[in-house]
Amino acid sequence: MEAYLDNSATTKASEAVKDIVVKTMTADYGNPSSMHQKGVDAERYVREARERIAKTLKVDDREIFFTSGGTESNNWALIGGALANRRAGNHIITTAVEHAAVLQPLTFLQEMGFRITFLPVDEHGHISLEDLKRELCRDTILVSTMYVNNEIGAVEPVEEAAKIVKEYNPDILYHVDAIQAYGKYRIYPRKLGIDMLSVSGHKIHGPKGSGFLYIRDKAKVKPYIYGGGQQRGMRSGTENVPGAAGLGVAAMEAYTDFDAKIAKMRECKKRLIDGLNQIDGAYVISQLEEAPQIVSCSFPGVRSEVLLHALEEKGVYVSSGSACSSNKKVPVSTVLQEIHLKPERQDSTIRFSFSDWTTTEEIDYALRCLKELLPVLRRFTRR
Amino acid sequence: MEAYLDNSATTKASEAVKDIVVKTMTADYGNPSSMHQKGVDAERYVREARERIAKTLKVDDREIFFTSGGTESNNWALIGGALANRRAGNHIITTAVEHAAVLQPLTFLQEMGFRITFLPVDEHGHISLEDLKRELCRDTILVSTMYVNNEIGAVEPVEEAAKIVKEYNPDILYHVDAIQAYGKYRIYPRKLGIDMLSVSGHKIHGPKGSGFLYIRDKAKVKPYIYGGGQQRGMRSGTENVPGAAGLGVAAMEAYTDFDAKIAKMRECKKRLIDGLNQIDGAYVISQLEEAPQIVSCSFPGVRSEVLLHALEEKGVYVSSGSACSSNKKVPVSTVLQEIHLKPERQDSTIRFSFSDWTTTEEIDYALRCLKELLPVLRRFTRR
Repeated sequence: MEAYLDNSATTKASEAVKDIVVKTMTADYGNPSSMHQKGVDAERYVREARERIAKTLKVDDREIFFTSGGTESNNWALIGGALANRRAGNHIITTAVEHAAVLQPLTFLQEMGFRITFLPVDEHGHISLEDLKRELCRDTILVSTMYVNNEIGAVEPVEEAAKIVKEYNPDILYHVDAIQAYGKYRIYPRKLGIDMLSVSGHKIHGPKGSGFLYIRDKAKVKPYIYGGGQQRGMRSGTENVPGAAGLGVAAMEAYTDFDAKIAKMRECKKRLIDGLNQIDGAYVISQLEEAPQIVSCSFPGVRSEVLLHALEEKGVYVSSGSACSSNKKVPVSTVLQEIHLKPERQDSTIRFSFSDWTTTEEIDYALRCLKELLPVLRRFTRR
Repeated sequence: MEAYLDNSATTKASEAVKDIVVKTMTADYGNPSSMHQKGVDAERYVREARERIAKTLKVDDREIFFTSGGTESNNWALIGGALANRRAGNHIITTAVEHAAVLQPLTFLQEMGFRITFLPVDEHGHISLEDLKRELCRDTILVSTMYVNNEIGAVEPVEEAAKIVKEYNPDILYHVDAIQAYGKYRIYPRKLGIDMLSVSGHKIHGPKGSGFLYIRDKAKVKPYIYGGGQQRGMRSGTENVPGAAGLGVAAMEAYTDFDAKIAKMRECKKRLIDGLNQIDGAYVISQLEEAPQIVSCSFPGVRSEVLLHALEEKGVYVSSGSACSSNKKVPVSTVLQEIHLKPERQDSTIRFSFSDWTTTEEIDYALRCLKELLPVLRRFTRR
């Protein structure tokens, strides 16, 4: 049996996604910028994808811009947002538990002279709205928080944060990294007061190399990739038609039978947490009521990569800490440090992550494997 | 019959490209950063693609960085190159006939305080090496020229330019936009003295949304997209495994039986030019001995978009001026202006572009259609 429980790292593309990718690569392969029918046909796929996505967010089609993925979306939102507003100030607020795709562009901006404030989090990974209020100042031009934390599934108070930011100064851009939230929550940026929202395709059974950035109409954001003027001059480069079309299908699928899908993930989550709580020494980090697809758990006494590889031999695929960092080195998880997890727990943390395809059979199998492996691994560790 | 003669706008993906894209989307769909076997398998595709590409350029695998396409490659090379070297100077040299994906990032750099020199071209679209020599100065940090012009197929003297730049100051970065040249010429950046080379996948039967930037080992270039540290920290973001794998296959295919493929394109080019020369009033802009895949031709008396749509109805797909600009408006072609083409020729210019799949039957069919359509269109124009 196989249990792929690493869906927050990446997902398998759905059949319908694969089909539209193949169709746009081999039949309707035109360049949307071409004036002839093949161009018109290709453009239709991009437009339809944009409409499908806009519908899930209840926003205007014109507010959706395709990118090469979540990382580009975050880079664009932060750097494009900061550069467009630098005359208004140089202060940016974010959280201490952001993904590297937010932290690293902010480091670049810091080198360029921007001042960055990192809001701390409590033991569950949540920022304090009081901290946010306190840090807002006349120089603040941009606030960026994630929606769902990729390592532990904590849900940040996005709606309340937006309210505080906008009440303080409506010109401050509020960006939300929703890469682990889109498809798992109904997100309505306009209603919430979000100016920019980053989304990745391959986390929701869409194509790798696809993503989008929602930019509220009239939000002041500079383009990040310049050229032929595609996407109304905001994101140049021949549109990745298969990527956009595949992402549109994935978005549509994610929000079809949405409640049932989330209920299924919640069932899996509950079943896994219940099972983990029965395992001697296991320490469940993630809270049941937070993101439906992520369960982070420590197994003190067993190093996470040892457990990961032992599970892998049984066909159970998980990740240790954040799996989106490169090079297969064990990443130093800033999140686990920031929630003040004890060091022996940090080193032994495994992330299980689901998609709507995950079954309770997979959960049960993973639990059986854990129960079998942990006593053996503990015996061979720390001799 | 159909004649797709717009291959410089985009190409149809090859069967082998499609197959590897499907395989990496649905079977080997892991995240290369994942520590488990699915991650290792995914990484193997990326590595193999990098090796295949490096082999075609005779460079080290480590010098190939995957991007989301030619436009990102150009943005990265120019902005990343300029920002990394701004302490050494603020002067950049390019040509007046670059693609928008070079001109627009340079405009951004101009706004940031860099000084840009645009080298003029002669009536065939070639820069003068004397001009280049004259413009190099102590402040010059970057020179960027295209290899093959996308509109008329002019081939710039890349090797000689590199020599001049490197003799003047080996620290000056020399970037080449090879988006229309890769797969049509054997390009060896190391031998030629090229520091950065931009390539796009979808021009060579590879996937849209794929491309790479060659960066010579030790060349001083800042990353452009920051995040999880993928691709040795130079280009973050989960690797687009299907895109990279597809591009690797396309690159390999382009350079397999290379001489025969180029000979076939040259045969098509000669046949088309010979045929056009027999058409009353047709003015062939492109020279036979330049890029094998591009024939630009004016048909004074018929506006190019009128001819384009008339040809389209016969199943002949071409472009008017540069087809990589967006919005389907007739682009103001700076290239045709820069080569001082008469205005009535500019407005009536059509670009025919081939791939190695183009047949002489398609050429003959296009010529028959032109001969049939032109007298009719001329009768109905300019009344």
